[in-house]
Amino acid sequence: MPGRVDAEQLVKAALEGDRSSLARLISVVERGGPLARAVGRLTYPRGGRAYSVGITGAPGSGKSTLTDRLIAEVRGQGGQVAVLAVDPSSPFSGGAILGDRVRMQDHAVDPGVFIRSMATRGHMGGLALAVPEAIRVLDAAGMPIVLVETVGVGQVEIEVAGATDTTVVVVNPGWGDAVQANKAGLLEIADILVINKADRPGARETHRDLALMLELSTFGDWRPPIVETVASTGQGVAELWGELGRHRAFQEERGALDRRRAKRLEDELRTIVTRRLEQRADSLSTSASYDSVRSAMIERQLDPYQAADEIVDGLAR
Amino acid sequence: MPGRVDAEQLVKAALEGDRSSLARLISVVERGGPLARAVGRLTYPRGGRAYSVGITGAPGSGKSTLTDRLIAEVRGQGGQVAVLAVDPSSPFSGGAILGDRVRMQDHAVDPGVFIRSMATRGHMGGLALAVPEAIRVLDAAGMPIVLVETVGVGQVEIEVAGATDTTVVVVNPGWGDAVQANKAGLLEIADILVINKADRPGARETHRDLALMLELSTFGDWRPPIVETVASTGQGVAELWGELGRHRAFQEERGALDRRRAKRLEDELRTIVTRRLEQRADSLSTSASYDSVRSAMIERQLDPYQAADEIVDGLAR
Repeated sequence: MPGRVDAEQLVKAALEGDRSSLARLISVVERGGPLARAVGRLTYPRGGRAYSVGITGAPGSGKSTLTDRLIAEVRGQGGQVAVLAVDPSSPFSGGAILGDRVRMQDHAVDPGVFIRSMATRGHMGGLALAVPEAIRVLDAAGMPIVLVETVGVGQVEIEVAGATDTTVVVVNPGWGDAVQANKAGLLEIADILVINKADRPGARETHRDLALMLELSTFGDWRPPIVETVASTGQGVAELWGELGRHRAFQEERGALDRRRAKRLEDELRTIVTRRLEQRADSLSTSASYDSVRSAMIERQLDPYQAADEIVDGLAR
Repeated sequence: MPGRVDAEQLVKAALEGDRSSLARLISVVERGGPLARAVGRLTYPRGGRAYSVGITGAPGSGKSTLTDRLIAEVRGQGGQVAVLAVDPSSPFSGGAILGDRVRMQDHAVDPGVFIRSMATRGHMGGLALAVPEAIRVLDAAGMPIVLVETVGVGQVEIEVAGATDTTVVVVNPGWGDAVQANKAGLLEIADILVINKADRPGARETHRDLALMLELSTFGDWRPPIVETVASTGQGVAELWGELGRHRAFQEERGALDRRRAKRLEDELRTIVTRRLEQRADSLSTSASYDSVRSAMIERQLDPYQAADEIVDGLAR
């Protein structure tokens, strides 16, 4: 059919290195639906090599500048890198690259760098399901490193940044005393803690606070290191890059990376199953049997829980 | 069985006016589970006469004092009244009546007043499902008026206060410029807007702001009135009581009350169905077939969406 987007052709082109096809694939995945499902089926078997890094922290903590520096670090070593900038608060995506994002566009002319922002679109499960799919597309397209940067620290953003191979949490000196980061659930997902803008007053106190909070929390064999950076000058970025490599090696040596990825897929599967069941309940609600159960409930012949049992049991029939 | 709580006996005693049995029924419903289901089946057919009023607003806006005044208003007319004080942030309930609640306890010796606080307990669907059940128990027990007061304006509290026959939203002069109330989604659920502490500076501006926001929003045939009260002195409370009666009569005349209640039951039914399906998905996740699908996914033979389809289709088999 002329004009119809063909998943197979698009995936083929993206895998051969065509960046505009790759960008279109991310948009497809962002919107969800049957085409996205086709893209998922075609790309998933070809993945498994990309290493994903989540970068999260409060707005203004300097995540974009830090991401920019990490891009330069990867490029300096000759590697390719993809960046997904995730903004659940925005109805815009793709072309809508604003503010801090502008800086990253210095890399936009570099064919070794692929940058894309993702916002809330039509995807059934929102960004929490769309972003892992996008990472898999980038993985299949041969991107060895995928950086996932969030705009803020909302629940979705924490979920998205946590669903990566290494999660970097960025705080600032005195930023809510680092206690805010703890309250927001950021410490729980952090593999590496970064104090950015560490040339500002209060860095030492924030470092001490974070160290204390780590002391009080439980973690496995990996103790999250605390790295001080000044992203604007590049100070500490090499050290951060080193810690990223150290965490990767740590996980690869122990089989922890495979377990982490399997766990992530299982969580994703459970979420998709729940969504599917909700959709089924929604589609049921227009059926004739649902209608009669609903009437019986409103006429007080069945209480809402008995009515629910009737409907759920009806699903299996 | 000695010592075993018998739903039938408890319901019978509560319906005959025993207040401690009624209090136990609310606790049963709060915890959820099979006993709560039995209580629901026994009480639901006996209800339909109670009129429920939700009272929500930011902490400190004076909701408890206002509720206290409304209790006095009902009692002055010789009616009985029940109050559910809903606190999703608290792990305590029942006995844990603190601060503002203490004042209401003046009514605790009055046999025409039944006060109970509800917090997050074991109920599968949380307070959003437990509170409507509790209202039905109070309804069956013959309470003609049920006031549902929330502690704050969290999502659950807005949901709970909105799932009543008349919803009262309380703001204060200058309280975040009333704009906050709008942002929090409070204006959407308000049938009556109250500016409490209206003797404080800024009441006129807040009144004007609310009127403007109502002007800009869409509502049906009922235009929410704005009532100014000073709950601490009782000023404006008679007017608020009058507006409650006016809203009730307005709905009863047009059949709107029955439609509102039917809509509420349908929403509740849908929520219960979804929860049941989630539970089913959870119980499935330990089954052998789930295990083989999960393995196929991790070995990249099925992508997560194909795996989800296998599992969901398996449900119907």
